[in-house]
Amino acid sequence: MTVTVAIDCMGGDFGPAVTVRAARDFVENHDDVSVILVGIEEKISPFLARSADSRIAIHHASEIVAMDEAPALALRNKKDSSMRVAINLVKQGQADACVSAGNTGALMAISRFVLKMLPGIDRPAICAILPTAKGHSHVLDLGANVDCSPEHLLQFGIMGASLVAAMEHKDRPTVGILNIGAEAIKGNDVVKRAAELLRESGLNFVGNVEGDGIYKGEAEVIVCDGFVGNVALKASEGLAQMLATFLKREFNRSLLTKLVALIALPVLNNFKKHVDHRRYNGATLLGLKGIVVKSHGSADVFSFANAIERAAEEARTGVLSRITERVALQQPLQEIA
Amino acid sequence: MTVTVAIDCMGGDFGPAVTVRAARDFVENHDDVSVILVGIEEKISPFLARSADSRIAIHHASEIVAMDEAPALALRNKKDSSMRVAINLVKQGQADACVSAGNTGALMAISRFVLKMLPGIDRPAICAILPTAKGHSHVLDLGANVDCSPEHLLQFGIMGASLVAAMEHKDRPTVGILNIGAEAIKGNDVVKRAAELLRESGLNFVGNVEGDGIYKGEAEVIVCDGFVGNVALKASEGLAQMLATFLKREFNRSLLTKLVALIALPVLNNFKKHVDHRRYNGATLLGLKGIVVKSHGSADVFSFANAIERAAEEARTGVLSRITERVALQQPLQEIA
Repeated sequence: MTVTVAIDCMGGDFGPAVTVRAARDFVENHDDVSVILVGIEEKISPFLARSADSRIAIHHASEIVAMDEAPALALRNKKDSSMRVAINLVKQGQADACVSAGNTGALMAISRFVLKMLPGIDRPAICAILPTAKGHSHVLDLGANVDCSPEHLLQFGIMGASLVAAMEHKDRPTVGILNIGAEAIKGNDVVKRAAELLRESGLNFVGNVEGDGIYKGEAEVIVCDGFVGNVALKASEGLAQMLATFLKREFNRSLLTKLVALIALPVLNNFKKHVDHRRYNGATLLGLKGIVVKSHGSADVFSFANAIERAAEEARTGVLSRITERVALQQPLQEIA
Repeated sequence: MTVTVAIDCMGGDFGPAVTVRAARDFVENHDDVSVILVGIEEKISPFLARSADSRIAIHHASEIVAMDEAPALALRNKKDSSMRVAINLVKQGQADACVSAGNTGALMAISRFVLKMLPGIDRPAICAILPTAKGHSHVLDLGANVDCSPEHLLQFGIMGASLVAAMEHKDRPTVGILNIGAEAIKGNDVVKRAAELLRESGLNFVGNVEGDGIYKGEAEVIVCDGFVGNVALKASEGLAQMLATFLKREFNRSLLTKLVALIALPVLNNFKKHVDHRRYNGATLLGLKGIVVKSHGSADVFSFANAIERAAEEARTGVLSRITERVALQQPLQEIA
């Protein structure tokens, strides 16, 4: 089975210089994937000169959604943006998934408008992978929804569990809810009620997970509202960056410490590789009738290729039908309750 | 001027073995501080054997609040707990501040009941210091309030700024609000309204700070509701711990990497010292008519001594009167608005 991924080549901080190069490399290394490069043709083709792969097509789109553009305006005015056309290709069945490093708000708004929600799901959620002491966890929502109801959090749990079930071939992945105390009495009313719904849902619910529990790997899927999730994710990114800066500074302090750094380089590089956030690039917009993956705007070629792989893998493993089946299973239960 | 700090010696994971040792060391190193060691006398005195400092007094209290005890029960039933008696000493003016490594919820409930709130402040907030690329920032609330109104967040801003003004002798410390986007349009309604109030408050308000902005040092005071703050803090702790574990693992991989670790040890130790969370131990419960500092339950002697120093420094610099004055200044403005 071949999977086709539409790529918004104009999105992100570096545009085609990153997106097209990453797509080209990706196709070279993955026999089962075709890509459709969406964007301004004369900006895309220079990066393809060396390649004439039949699995690479260009689809011209004349407009670009700016990184700081208001999502509502991008939705209304940019009908021929690379972002929108890439999403249209998914809608029309010409692509199995799409990837963009562009404006998150616009990607969310346009995806929702074009693709619509899966039956039984009220809102999309941003789901990303974070490294943990035990491997990795899937956390959602990371910023699509600033206010969530308990029902939304339940839906996030169902979607996250279905995603892990499909992509990692795990029957009953563990699901936790982000909270401020391990005891059931803590947390706000929405979280408490959501925990009750998750407990009754038939999911493999393990209860509350505190902030540090994310990195301890206390659950394979962790649900939270988008405000809390976004703050936790970005605080983590900020801390990791600060620690890396401090570590570099210590090794750069003198000629002697620089020599030590040289000796320690293989060890430090192994460490860096292990926690490299670029490996985890590619957050999926779950809940839509189509696979949409958001790359970090600042992604480099290696990083963006990981986002393409994520999109391809969701298509290969049938994440959407898995979610749809699981939600259908849930609905009768909900109606009885 | 001598400052007296009451110490709940029975709180925390290690009780007097940590708290009394830390207090004894602290008094030896600080001429201007006396301590009152509160708790079960026969558990405290063994750790004092070597010392006969006139600035160390023992105040017997027969009960202990358990780390997992329900705050409401601790408040109702444990009238002679070391925690409560230490807080009573502050109330009665026998101590200028108190420190506890015990049950956070109980400490909050008992402090609020015994000391009451400062005029114009509705709720206490937990305020801690976090290291940043530029030095450090004060973040509040870190878990006392799971649902905050915009007015509460404004009060947190005023309290945080007053604290920094008093303790760090800065006239107009910068104040930011934790949010999920740098643009004013993002975030939920409470945060948006709170940002408006902060903008009109006369504080040196710098606007939205995203999660990573905490560690970039984008504001000296960062306000947020206790749910978000607690998750961000604990996620940071969890990530730092995971990274430390990974780094250790890489250096322990083989005889060669262990040798490298030995060579790199001075550099790694400098790094560790710089980001050592024990240096930042001691979160203050702001908004009460008295200084109450919460130490991490797992604090060691070095760490607990830092919490004592924090309590002493708040007393020395008159943080409470600074907050009271600043709130009084705000109130007429609020009433007009």
